[in-house]
Amino acid sequence: MSSLPIGTLKKALGKFIIIRLKDNVKYKGKLESFDQYMNCHLSEAVEIIDDEEVSRYGSIFVRGNNILLVRLSINE
Amino acid sequence: MSSLPIGTLKKALGKFIIIRLKDNVKYKGKLESFDQYMNCHLSEAVEIIDDEEVSRYGSIFVRGNNILLVRLSINE
Amino acid sequence: MSSLPIGTLKKALGKFIIIRLKDNVKYKGKLESFDQYMNCHLSEAVEIIDDEEVSRYGSIFVRGNNILLVRLSINE
Amino acid sequence: MSSLPIGTLKKALGKFIIIRLKDNVKYKGKLESFDQYMNCHLSEAVEIIDDEEVSRYGSIFVRGNNILLVRLSINE
Amino acid sequence: MSSLPIGTLKKALGKFIIIRLKDNVKYKGKLESFDQYMNCHLSEAVEIIDDEEVSRYGSIFVRGNNILLVRLSINE
Amino acid sequence: MSSLPIGTLKKALGKFIIIRLKDNVKYKGKLESFDQYMNCHLSEAVEIIDDEEVSRYGSIFVRGNNILLVRLSINE
Amino acid sequence: MSSLPIGTLKKALGKFIIIRLKDNVKYKGKLESFDQYMNCHLSEAVEIIDDEEVSRYGSIFVRGNNILLVRLSINE
Repeated sequence: MSSLPIGTLKKALGKFIIIRLKDNVKYKGKLESFDQYMNCHLSEAVEIIDDEEVSRYGSIFVRGNNILLVRLSINE
Repeated sequence: MSSLPIGTLKKALGKFIIIRLKDNVKYKGKLESFDQYMNCHLSEAVEIIDDEEVSRYGSIFVRGNNILLVRLSINE
Repeated sequence: MSSLPIGTLKKALGKFIIIRLKDNVKYKGKLESFDQYMNCHLSEAVEIIDDEEVSRYGSIFVRGNNILLVRLSINE
Repeated sequence: MSSLPIGTLKKALGKFIIIRLKDNVKYKGKLESFDQYMNCHLSEAVEIIDDEEVSRYGSIFVRGNNILLVRLSINE
Repeated sequence: MSSLPIGTLKKALGKFIIIRLKDNVKYKGKLESFDQYMNCHLSEAVEIIDDEEVSRYGSIFVRGNNILLVRLSINE
Repeated sequence: MSSLPIGTLKKALGKFIIIRLKDNVKYKGKLESFDQYMNCHLSEAVEIIDDEEVSRYGSIFVRGNNILLVRLSINE
Repeated sequence: MSSLPIGTLKKALGKFIIIRLKDNVKYKGKLESFDQYMNCHLSEAVEIIDDEEVSRYGSIFVRGNNILLVRLSINE
């Protein structure tokens, strides 16, 4: 097997990612840190609903166990 | 990796945070304590629905496993 | 960190609390005991729906894993 | 702390209790036995929907992990 | 405490039981075997919706973690 | 107790089974392998909705923890 | 038993797969890596709703515990 999926989060530290939660809300922000449960700390976070940025949240802590997926390359 | 996400909660002790639960209700309050399960004790807590403060709750205990995210910088 | 969140439950023993479950029903009662899973035994329990006391339940056992939050200071 | 919540189930052995499950259906029956997962064996069980006894079930085994709460004093 | 709830399943081996799953569908069949997770093997299984036998399934394997309850005395 | 339920899966290796998932979609396919989590590898898999084969999927990997039940004798 | 189901993922490394999540959204992408929790890293990922490719996502990290199934042979 090649490198583990968690390695892709390591490379994303300091960059903007989009986290999609189970209830279909998305949060875009700069990945400041994460742990083995996929808990993530984002700065400059904004909430995205239906592809629109609806709220600015500043610094947020996202619980890992409700994350559906993380988009790593948001400018591709 | 930089410091762990849980460290951001440590810095928030004694400050106001907003906790968003799975059922989309939010609670704003002063973070008095938390543990490794993200159980949180808030004082001066208020319930927020659709961005309005609907009820004053005083002191509340929030179970960690139903928390979606924590907004740490509510005045940003 | 200051004292743990679970400590707030200890202080509430013998006092009335309100437990909110995942399905949004609330139970008010006197906290007789609890364990590390947050299972709670309440006496003089009443079921609350839409802020009205709809049923008197007497003594109830509430499973911890379905608890969203506990309101500790119901007379504040 | 006083005695543990599970102790209240012990005292209810041989008596009628009402178990409320996650999907809001209730079962009333005589508690014959339970284990540490809160799996319960009820005899003379009846299903209750909207406070009406809709079906007689005889002897049932209820899985503990879907139990919301147990009403211990159904004649109070 | 009297004998454990799981003991009631042991006595039901070779007899017909009704398993109710989380999504409210029921399966009636002869209990051939079960394990500690409450996974069950039923033979001569039929699916029951709204108290009608809608499909004959033959031999089925039911995952324990989605079982709400088991009716043990279906002819009572 | 007779043989364990998992043994029924062993006997089904190389035969066609129908897996029903939590969201009520079913997959029919030849059971190529499974593990202790009930993760299953099916070949020649087809998706079944409302008893109609709606899509051919070829080879699929089904996560065990979302399986409701497995129909073992689909030609009975 | 033949080889384990997880082995089918190993063979799919570097190839395109389709992951179906619990909320019925699908993601097609090249499987770059996965781990024992079935967390997957996909490149060239696209979101598929109702069989249409609705969004290009680039590189994504998918949490294993919300995966329903993985289609391994998308050109069959």
